[in-house]
Amino acid sequence: MDILIKKIEEVVGSSGILLGEDVTSRSDFWPPMGGCQAKAIIRPASTREVSEVLKLCHAAGQSVVTHGGLTGLVGGARAGKEDIVLSLERMKGTEPVDTVNRTITVEAGVPLQRIHEIAEHAGLLFPLDLGARGSCTIGGNIATNAGGNSVIRYGMMREQVLGVEAVLADGTIISSLNCVIKNNTGYDLKQLFIGSEGTLGIVTRAVLRLRPMPRSCNTALVAVDHYALLGRFLSAMDAALGGTLSAFEVMWNDFYRLLVAEGGQHGQPLQPSHPFYVLLESTGGHEKSDKDRFEGALEEAFEAELIVDAVIAQSKQQRQDLWAIRDDIEGLNKALSPPLVFDISLGIEQMDGYVDEVRAQLSERWPDSRMVVFGHLGDGNIHLVLTVGSHEPDEVHAVEAIIYEALGRRQGVISAEHGIGLDKRDYLKHSRSTAEIALMKTVKQALDPKGILNPGKIFASQTDSPS
Amino acid sequence: MDILIKKIEEVVGSSGILLGEDVTSRSDFWPPMGGCQAKAIIRPASTREVSEVLKLCHAAGQSVVTHGGLTGLVGGARAGKEDIVLSLERMKGTEPVDTVNRTITVEAGVPLQRIHEIAEHAGLLFPLDLGARGSCTIGGNIATNAGGNSVIRYGMMREQVLGVEAVLADGTIISSLNCVIKNNTGYDLKQLFIGSEGTLGIVTRAVLRLRPMPRSCNTALVAVDHYALLGRFLSAMDAALGGTLSAFEVMWNDFYRLLVAEGGQHGQPLQPSHPFYVLLESTGGHEKSDKDRFEGALEEAFEAELIVDAVIAQSKQQRQDLWAIRDDIEGLNKALSPPLVFDISLGIEQMDGYVDEVRAQLSERWPDSRMVVFGHLGDGNIHLVLTVGSHEPDEVHAVEAIIYEALGRRQGVISAEHGIGLDKRDYLKHSRSTAEIALMKTVKQALDPKGILNPGKIFASQTDSPS
Repeated sequence: MDILIKKIEEVVGSSGILLGEDVTSRSDFWPPMGGCQAKAIIRPASTREVSEVLKLCHAAGQSVVTHGGLTGLVGGARAGKEDIVLSLERMKGTEPVDTVNRTITVEAGVPLQRIHEIAEHAGLLFPLDLGARGSCTIGGNIATNAGGNSVIRYGMMREQVLGVEAVLADGTIISSLNCVIKNNTGYDLKQLFIGSEGTLGIVTRAVLRLRPMPRSCNTALVAVDHYALLGRFLSAMDAALGGTLSAFEVMWNDFYRLLVAEGGQHGQPLQPSHPFYVLLESTGGHEKSDKDRFEGALEEAFEAELIVDAVIAQSKQQRQDLWAIRDDIEGLNKALSPPLVFDISLGIEQMDGYVDEVRAQLSERWPDSRMVVFGHLGDGNIHLVLTVGSHEPDEVHAVEAIIYEALGRRQGVISAEHGIGLDKRDYLKHSRSTAEIALMKTVKQALDPKGILNPGKIFASQTDSPS
Repeated sequence: MDILIKKIEEVVGSSGILLGEDVTSRSDFWPPMGGCQAKAIIRPASTREVSEVLKLCHAAGQSVVTHGGLTGLVGGARAGKEDIVLSLERMKGTEPVDTVNRTITVEAGVPLQRIHEIAEHAGLLFPLDLGARGSCTIGGNIATNAGGNSVIRYGMMREQVLGVEAVLADGTIISSLNCVIKNNTGYDLKQLFIGSEGTLGIVTRAVLRLRPMPRSCNTALVAVDHYALLGRFLSAMDAALGGTLSAFEVMWNDFYRLLVAEGGQHGQPLQPSHPFYVLLESTGGHEKSDKDRFEGALEEAFEAELIVDAVIAQSKQQRQDLWAIRDDIEGLNKALSPPLVFDISLGIEQMDGYVDEVRAQLSERWPDSRMVVFGHLGDGNIHLVLTVGSHEPDEVHAVEAIIYEALGRRQGVISAEHGIGLDKRDYLKHSRSTAEIALMKTVKQALDPKGILNPGKIFASQTDSPS
């Protein structure tokens, strides 16, 4: 055991360190497959311990990769042989909900779903939600500025965080646990740590904003026959539902057909013959009048010929069945194996042309390739899941080149909610200018001059070979 | 004319420079009184010109104070004899509204009200609104992270900005004009410029997010008899109005009584005998059902004994009359002369005790002092307007000490929406820790190593005497 690890053990105790097989039997990517390469996994139990460990690592020039729930999709948590992993898995403390100011203060290792449960118990809502809710942690949600299904109503993780406590590379604890909605006292330091993927500091605690628990929920699956009508339908719903629109998820025909007509594990709430399907949801404050308004808004959309068919969920079960189609990632991965997943943002009016261009290019090179398209169109964000029948790096890079170059030409965004990590690093230039990337590096250099925090993620570290 | 000014003139032309009386006849604080001390006021016409001017200033180590609409309340735009002022008054360009993605791209010098008008013309809403709307500029709103009356529904300026173009101290143009809601491609650089009061860069353009125009507006003035009921009433309304609550403005009795019973320029919509008044507003998507729901929610609040009296506006005029009371800053300033204005955030449950303590301390020292309290209680933010009959610096400092020390003991926030500027700089330590302020300075040093941008604002510059 080297000297640094020995010193770290003095801080965190022997139960705070994993070595050897306890490391390699763990995974550092998703889906988990084992094989973490790190020197050691450190499991501090408090912010003070995180600080002490980082002081030691900083003095030794030791690189540190932070682990949360390990559900990221871009390799942001991958650790090499020279890295130490710092896992926040023992920091799962939660303070009581402040029901008057509607906040909760929690440690970074708390799983997202636990926050949902605590909030609900207090009659409140924590709106951020994603499929990985049972495993992903609040610290990871903050470090990656997580998105999910209710961004259209409540915003991304950035909007749910009032304050953070973070530890800088040199061990300095920045306690910026602001509890109020409005705070213009100098730089809003928490913004440095939100979405910077563990490269500027390690988030150890956060104050989260809670919302009133909705009293009504109305859900419909709607068929739309022309792409151009989707944007108009979105505007119409957003205006008619006046602040209560909480999901506007679009499925291209290929996605819907695959899951309801080919997969067989879902019913067919609507015929699979329409070009587009929208999963529409509204949550509000009054059961009866929200239902009337929701149905009225859909009727108006029919009359305006924005939509051609619709089914409204009449029960919780029916609602779940509709969402099960949208959320059936397992069904997708089975049909499109091995799957490649992309997460892009683009102006709504450009998306259809973009999807068509990508599809044509993929078909030309891989005649048997298959792609399905779906996502949070209400936020200008869609996911492409596709297969070209191979996971070989060269093939993957060729697919990425098609996806990102077509996007770069349209000034699109190569990562709407998944982040950059390691996997999208080489494509960052399609979405950010040389001056922007240089400024990111200036900030990185200022906060982490030795480059020990999650090195090589987002952009190459100084010691990496150029990429 | 010195050499630097001559070089700058080559960039911006003679109409782009004001000197001598053209400078001193202008003001750099509010209310305007003339007397700007700067060497020169530079009026660039484009981002390129801003960049060229900053390159020259950077090379010469020349300090630069940026001017927008000059409606700030904390001295953030004040310039000394050694400073050059850079005014964005000629950069008022606007691009057409993107009605599909609901965005507009504008130059920093555009007044806020102009954005309201353009958005409305396109059938959309730009929700940020404040009293200074006719004069304040988008660039200033961004630099100060402006708040206002609809934060409870739509958030502060930070939440309205999708992308910015900014010029760094050395003239580098950072074009980060993101147009989409979700963009997780590396650090969110715009956050550096929002709310940093011109100390990290000069915002020259921005992409703003627009919202659907509400189709209904319901407004009421409500009387509440106990402070403890205000928080419960807020929660009840937020839940019952399900996402449509757009204002929850509280007036303490002293405020309401001063304006409706003493001032005489307003009607008395409710008797001035209640301890608290709430101006409640909801905007939604459906006129009839929103009205029913609004009235129903108030009825429920009566039945639950949260409120004791209410008047609902039955016309646009009645709505304006209610808002006129809340917005009568002129009436306040007249009655409380010379006025001192404070802008604080605090947990809702602590506010009443805080106000009582401050009032007692002021009365003890200045028996004739008078203070009124009001503000955005729904956001945990109130304003205190008071007079001790003097504007002498010693007296003002003594008042500030009372206000901020009582706040610091409660871990309150010394500036909710006004910023720090010059006037609150010495009190920043009441709201931010030594480590936080040190990190702010690290960021400042990284982005503006020569300290030429708005020096001495937020925290003392290296060349200032210690404070």
